[in-house]
Amino acid sequence: MAEFDLIRRIQQRSGDGALLLGIGDDAALIEPPPGQVLAVTSDTLNIGVHFPHDARPADIGWKALAVNLSDLAAMGATPAFCTVALSLPQADRAWLDGFLDGFLELAIRHGVVLAGGDTTRGPLSITVTAHGWVPAGQALRRDGARIGDDVWVTGTLGDATAALAQLEAGGVADAALRARLDRPTPRIEAGLALRALAHACIDLSDGLLQDIGHVCRASGTAAEIALDALPASTAFLDRSTAETRHGEQATGGDDYELCFTAAPASEDAIHALAASLPLRITRVGSIVEGEGVLALLADGTPWQPPRSGYAHFG
Amino acid sequence: MAEFDLIRRIQQRSGDGALLLGIGDDAALIEPPPGQVLAVTSDTLNIGVHFPHDARPADIGWKALAVNLSDLAAMGATPAFCTVALSLPQADRAWLDGFLDGFLELAIRHGVVLAGGDTTRGPLSITVTAHGWVPAGQALRRDGARIGDDVWVTGTLGDATAALAQLEAGGVADAALRARLDRPTPRIEAGLALRALAHACIDLSDGLLQDIGHVCRASGTAAEIALDALPASTAFLDRSTAETRHGEQATGGDDYELCFTAAPASEDAIHALAASLPLRITRVGSIVEGEGVLALLADGTPWQPPRSGYAHFG
Repeated sequence: MAEFDLIRRIQQRSGDGALLLGIGDDAALIEPPPGQVLAVTSDTLNIGVHFPHDARPADIGWKALAVNLSDLAAMGATPAFCTVALSLPQADRAWLDGFLDGFLELAIRHGVVLAGGDTTRGPLSITVTAHGWVPAGQALRRDGARIGDDVWVTGTLGDATAALAQLEAGGVADAALRARLDRPTPRIEAGLALRALAHACIDLSDGLLQDIGHVCRASGTAAEIALDALPASTAFLDRSTAETRHGEQATGGDDYELCFTAAPASEDAIHALAASLPLRITRVGSIVEGEGVLALLADGTPWQPPRSGYAHFG
Repeated sequence: MAEFDLIRRIQQRSGDGALLLGIGDDAALIEPPPGQVLAVTSDTLNIGVHFPHDARPADIGWKALAVNLSDLAAMGATPAFCTVALSLPQADRAWLDGFLDGFLELAIRHGVVLAGGDTTRGPLSITVTAHGWVPAGQALRRDGARIGDDVWVTGTLGDATAALAQLEAGGVADAALRARLDRPTPRIEAGLALRALAHACIDLSDGLLQDIGHVCRASGTAAEIALDALPASTAFLDRSTAETRHGEQATGGDDYELCFTAAPASEDAIHALAASLPLRITRVGSIVEGEGVLALLADGTPWQPPRSGYAHFG
């Protein structure tokens, strides 16, 4: 299959949606909706680094889009369109069809149109650049946290890291945990609703302590996190030990949940939002004066993380 | 150098320009200028495929942006901002600084702001997603060619392919030819001016015959190209032979010139444009009824290309 056949295959399966001009010209053309600003984010997945060598093409397709939509969710943006740059060792229609199965399943769910991209020969690597729209002045940012805010997280933490730990130990990951590693759920609806409630927001890709640290640095604040409050799934609790739990939940990456800060007065509205989505939303700490992030054990003593988050260049 | 240091380094050197929000949040925010539509394009360069293993980081940086700006030029768009996804075998500040030297030299020339991206560990690969603005309804497209149009190209053809041939033969490429391979010039100003003159436009990345073929398919026309009319640089003529010349000029890739069609009545305006830029613009053929592209020798007989363009998956 030549390069142009790959592109045609993608074009056939994606459709042009609401674009003025889609795949097949030198660039795609998009008309901005009135009163909206554009949110743009770009993330790469490389084989052996961001997904296991045995990952299914459909899961890779899903995750390549999901990690980008998670960034749009953290801005409170409505996803609209994206480009995909695919490097493949060889042109392989079965692989491409699997990839598009997962990619388009998530894209269709959120009305994301594939606007263009590139297919090249090289080690397996996928870069998605995702675009969304957000009403002017309403975007969620990292720099809006205020002293006295509560810190909240959506969903549960540590599932993907626990799955990875099982895989790295040479075993088979628990199916529920593996699903959280392979098919993270971008919290788009939560992000949209949080535009009215949150002061600051970030998506959790590198571990809670590291990511809330970004919010604190951008906002000129510190944070205290109560480790015992971190929400955990049943599958996670079934296999976690006292020894590994805090590390996996507080410093493990790949959660793709939202972490946001909000005024204490918003607590009832946040619980109502959680019930309406429905999605677990849990208060896990506070924004305080100072610098840095303090993780506290149940007895109120500080916890020392065994490692400081998930750095791609260690 | 950890991932966050790489990003900080990029941020320090790029500046935020006209963005509402630049590098450092989950996504960048951009306010669309009134009355403009967004043009988006994404191209990847992989080591050993799109640039030689000995390519200088600054040249890689230049070219990674240039090939994308060339696509915006072909749409008649004004470049505005881009994202960069960088996969690097290891975090290397000297390499990154070299890369940014070339990248930012071209970005500053065209007012392109680096809005965000990703740095990951993996074999050397760069994906740039470039964004530009074009007044609604004025974009140049591939599907506008009309029977009777002249076919024109900017600059000279075959230089990059000739340089590559010299490298592949184990030699050192002529400096002027190598510069055309390493540092292609996106024809932004020409693209903007051609909005008023061209019926269809494409950038030449895969070889003239293949690329004008895309225009013909999109427009429902055929084209005749006069091989003897193809513009050649002095450096190219100094080393070309009758045997290789037509192949390198008509089917070689990496020219990053514009190919456009226009009414014969626009000839004087096109010559005036060429003089004003200044940039060589040469009439090389015509749009005719039918299907396909016919390349003609000086005596009017059809020429058979030795290979059919530059396919990444051969």
